[in-house]
Amino acid sequence: MNENINLLMNHRSIRKFEDKLLTREQIEVIVKCAQSAATSSFIQAYSIIGVTDKDKKMKLSELAGNQSYVANNGHFFVFCADLSRHEQIGEMENKDLIPSIESTEKFMVALIDTALAAQNAAIAAESLGLGICYIGGIRNNLDEVSKLLKTPKRVLPLFGLAVGYPAQMTDKKPRLPLEHVYHENEYRQNNEEYRNQLQLYNNIISEYYVARTNGERNDTWTSQMANMLEKQSRMYMKEFVQKTGMDLK
Amino acid sequence: MNENINLLMNHRSIRKFEDKLLTREQIEVIVKCAQSAATSSFIQAYSIIGVTDKDKKMKLSELAGNQSYVANNGHFFVFCADLSRHEQIGEMENKDLIPSIESTEKFMVALIDTALAAQNAAIAAESLGLGICYIGGIRNNLDEVSKLLKTPKRVLPLFGLAVGYPAQMTDKKPRLPLEHVYHENEYRQNNEEYRNQLQLYNNIISEYYVARTNGERNDTWTSQMANMLEKQSRMYMKEFVQKTGMDLK
Repeated sequence: MNENINLLMNHRSIRKFEDKLLTREQIEVIVKCAQSAATSSFIQAYSIIGVTDKDKKMKLSELAGNQSYVANNGHFFVFCADLSRHEQIGEMENKDLIPSIESTEKFMVALIDTALAAQNAAIAAESLGLGICYIGGIRNNLDEVSKLLKTPKRVLPLFGLAVGYPAQMTDKKPRLPLEHVYHENEYRQNNEEYRNQLQLYNNIISEYYVARTNGERNDTWTSQMANMLEKQSRMYMKEFVQKTGMDLK
Repeated sequence: MNENINLLMNHRSIRKFEDKLLTREQIEVIVKCAQSAATSSFIQAYSIIGVTDKDKKMKLSELAGNQSYVANNGHFFVFCADLSRHEQIGEMENKDLIPSIESTEKFMVALIDTALAAQNAAIAAESLGLGICYIGGIRNNLDEVSKLLKTPKRVLPLFGLAVGYPAQMTDKKPRLPLEHVYHENEYRQNNEEYRNQLQLYNNIISEYYVARTNGERNDTWTSQMANMLEKQSRMYMKEFVQKTGMDLK
């Protein structure tokens, strides 16, 4: 075990921040760490938009489902999958890169690249004593978000990252049992074992909620997941992604 | 600056490893760190397959384009986007989750979740003095890879992560200028400035190659990208993803 491992293992999302902005230096360190992540074939298929304008932050907060910590934080980053510069490169180098740019494969590459960079940013921030929260809620209404941030064609805002000085303590939620997530040499498919693991995990999660809410909440992981996934959310996504010019071909 | 920042900033891919396996403890620490990453609405939509069987590693190495370090390393992880357990949860909880599971939105969520977890694994490994290399090459032939690893429906192998004791020193490749990747409040779209930044970066990358290859290689970033993207690769991906049961609806 070492300091880095401790930091990784102790992640929890922070949803309340002190009224104190990050310094320019902190922001640049976080972005440079993001850029240091591995990138598929060196493609660097992302851009990061820092939002400092108060009105824009308020508007983003509304769009993300009225999450106050989207407006109130030390800095708000929006991570975008970005193949627009590769389109420009096609023009500069006089080559037709559009079939690649519009492929499902490169859409996946851009998403993965963006997420790897974002996770480095998150860890860099946490190592500076800051708290973070990923904001998938910006995908509630990407039409409005992309207008607000003026993202061009082939740029897809994926998620926000609220960063700031923590003004709350939160507990770490227990994850799925390691043996449920980690397989060796092949994917185990023993349904009975699988469901037993899920039941075991349900007990852990239920106890976690009971202890933290004086018994007011006792839901299991599988019931949480079923309720969340039963509601069909963001079903406009395919159409939006294609409109943005990542065509899922 | 701190130890964590140093670690993040000093990442480089390692493609040659000593003949020494990771211990069970190292593997478990790496997986636990992966699991500690943020996960969208707690969905935990990934699985990790560790490959230790020598024949399987050889076969994966071939499938990934004859990359020897896929076979020869301390441990080989395959990170998979996984919505299969959520399908089972639908059965357990008696709810129809299929429209969600087959949506483009949840496909994106699963990819992002998997990449965040993988980047934590990569950093954990590097903090233990190990080197890492992401292997997107497994996507060259996912049909064979998924047969080899027996991944069920709704599980999509995304990339490998070769981990081991470094047997080479490599240099860190300079990333795009920060001001090219980082925007504030809105996405800047000044094409002239944009192309100037790319030219500047081209010079940096070209000098980087010249210095490291005794002048044998001097390609620019934009030419590299144009050559890479001009070749249409893995155009079967959409069909495969849909066959796997992440239907991009």
